[in-house]
Amino acid sequence: MKFTYSALHHQHAPEHIMVRGTMAPNLEAPVRAETLLKQLCAQGHEQVSPQGWGQEWIAAVHDAGYLEFLSTAHERWRQVPNATPVIHPHAFAHYSSRRRPSSVQGQVGYYLAGGSSPMTEGTWTAAVGSAHAALEASKLVLEGEREAYALCRPPGHHAYADFGGGFCYLNNVAIAAHYMASELGRVAILDIDTHHGNGTQSIFYKRGDVHFVSVHGDPNVLFPFYAGYADETGEGEGEGCNLNLPLPLKSEDPAWLAAIDQGMASIQAYAPKALLVSLGFDPFKGDPSSDLAVSTEGFRGAGERIGAYRGPVVLVQEGGYLVEKLGENLDAFLEGFMRMRKAN
Amino acid sequence: MKFTYSALHHQHAPEHIMVRGTMAPNLEAPVRAETLLKQLCAQGHEQVSPQGWGQEWIAAVHDAGYLEFLSTAHERWRQVPNATPVIHPHAFAHYSSRRRPSSVQGQVGYYLAGGSSPMTEGTWTAAVGSAHAALEASKLVLEGEREAYALCRPPGHHAYADFGGGFCYLNNVAIAAHYMASELGRVAILDIDTHHGNGTQSIFYKRGDVHFVSVHGDPNVLFPFYAGYADETGEGEGEGCNLNLPLPLKSEDPAWLAAIDQGMASIQAYAPKALLVSLGFDPFKGDPSSDLAVSTEGFRGAGERIGAYRGPVVLVQEGGYLVEKLGENLDAFLEGFMRMRKAN
Repeated sequence: MKFTYSALHHQHAPEHIMVRGTMAPNLEAPVRAETLLKQLCAQGHEQVSPQGWGQEWIAAVHDAGYLEFLSTAHERWRQVPNATPVIHPHAFAHYSSRRRPSSVQGQVGYYLAGGSSPMTEGTWTAAVGSAHAALEASKLVLEGEREAYALCRPPGHHAYADFGGGFCYLNNVAIAAHYMASELGRVAILDIDTHHGNGTQSIFYKRGDVHFVSVHGDPNVLFPFYAGYADETGEGEGEGCNLNLPLPLKSEDPAWLAAIDQGMASIQAYAPKALLVSLGFDPFKGDPSSDLAVSTEGFRGAGERIGAYRGPVVLVQEGGYLVEKLGENLDAFLEGFMRMRKAN
Repeated sequence: MKFTYSALHHQHAPEHIMVRGTMAPNLEAPVRAETLLKQLCAQGHEQVSPQGWGQEWIAAVHDAGYLEFLSTAHERWRQVPNATPVIHPHAFAHYSSRRRPSSVQGQVGYYLAGGSSPMTEGTWTAAVGSAHAALEASKLVLEGEREAYALCRPPGHHAYADFGGGFCYLNNVAIAAHYMASELGRVAILDIDTHHGNGTQSIFYKRGDVHFVSVHGDPNVLFPFYAGYADETGEGEGEGCNLNLPLPLKSEDPAWLAAIDQGMASIQAYAPKALLVSLGFDPFKGDPSSDLAVSTEGFRGAGERIGAYRGPVVLVQEGGYLVEKLGENLDAFLEGFMRMRKAN
């Protein structure tokens, strides 16, 4: 299988995030992508570098003011007296009064969701590279590949049109889905990261041409907390095109795979022209960011279920923070996935 | 003059806030109130302790879910694995999708605005004591005193009905103003803290019986960033009852006093039955939280202008973080204020 990868992600490596009242090591680190890359190469998958993408498809999904912020924030932040080299937002707007201030001190809390969205000098460059990897994988599929995998880092599914958060700045899968929907007419996204894909949901919430399904840990207790509930079903033209399947914490393979079955049934019924997958390995038991308890065999089962879809598939990497198990879990997923693809 | 004070504020003393990308010393410390108390005693003002207040007037202004959160958050937070003893919120909702999660981890970012609203075991107790001090001062005035001063700590004016932030948890001046408006019919609030009173504005934005005026540094560059602009004039029955007078950073006495003159003219025209003042000493040149440049003589001038009002006045302490100058600035303000009061 062909996979896309941009080495620009190395430019984004903030050492800490702010969580549970303190500064903690940032587990969304370059070693995650390096580990996945090594595994893909070892298995003989074919690497493709994204090329020739500008900002057109990024700007088609994201707010212009937000993109201006992301691309200029760090340089402006460095002018702030007594500021650290890494941006951590620290003041947030009440939903009822949220004017856009002109200063970067104010904009960081206007455009970033909290302590797990630190920005350094290279964050923008890395985020653009990651979005381009998702676009390139989509292009491979549009040009005839049956499937492709985008090794995206930083991840994307928590990024709203105008709001970054949860390690995400640009919504890679949403940018790719909008691009593919523009070419194909209607597409679906299945998000199996342990955290609800709140940014993706928001971007397509009122659209009928992108069907979004997310299987994730109960947002009452797990990030992103404020979205991902079962009664969020879409609005307007998007009514019925949003399916959230939250699971109790500690859920194991049977419950997780049953939810994926339910999600795939909903997607099959929608009959999309292509499927995109927000692929997170953080439902894994022992992942430091999660409380689901999926096994490596569970990821193989997920791969089989998703691989049973007969149309084009773009896999987009999201989270997964237990580095020692990332390669093994990716392998199991892809094995299950490719076996079913070849059988169909 | 009589003043009210609750020693319960000592129970709230978080050592750090999160600001400009790092943990910094929390300047909103007990020594602020101790310094003001010492000055008031030295000048022979008469101390009154708040007594017999429950939660009735607090609950009349604040959201029930928010009060439940404030009163239980720390005990619940202590059950969170790997959490520090001090609550610092770290994840925030996008304005478009803000469900209320059941867990304390999610609620901290639902109810608190950011890094400058840390909570410890005694925060709720201290905040209630501070609100009671404001209520007690209001009662003194309702019972016949011409003026009273509430030595409130923690401060209150950044607290919304359902959202704490900027060192504030309960909106002391709003609770007092609602109480006084219930008794008198219509009241006004003048906020001269260097930061816009965004919580107070929000609480009364649609009400015609509380006229709110705020003189503050430009919110484009100064906290609270997302409100405090000149075109925010109230809504519905409150239309025309909200006046923001933002000043460019580095503004000195003449510009600051001219804005207070304009604010007092607006209040005189409104003809309230009483005036409440959100009194911050952080416009002072050299205050670490501000970029206005008001002098001690400027505070004397502010006292004179506010003292020219002939009705009952309740002074409610808000910010001011340059501890060495707090006593001197309070003295100057009260001297100017009382001289004009006696002359009228």
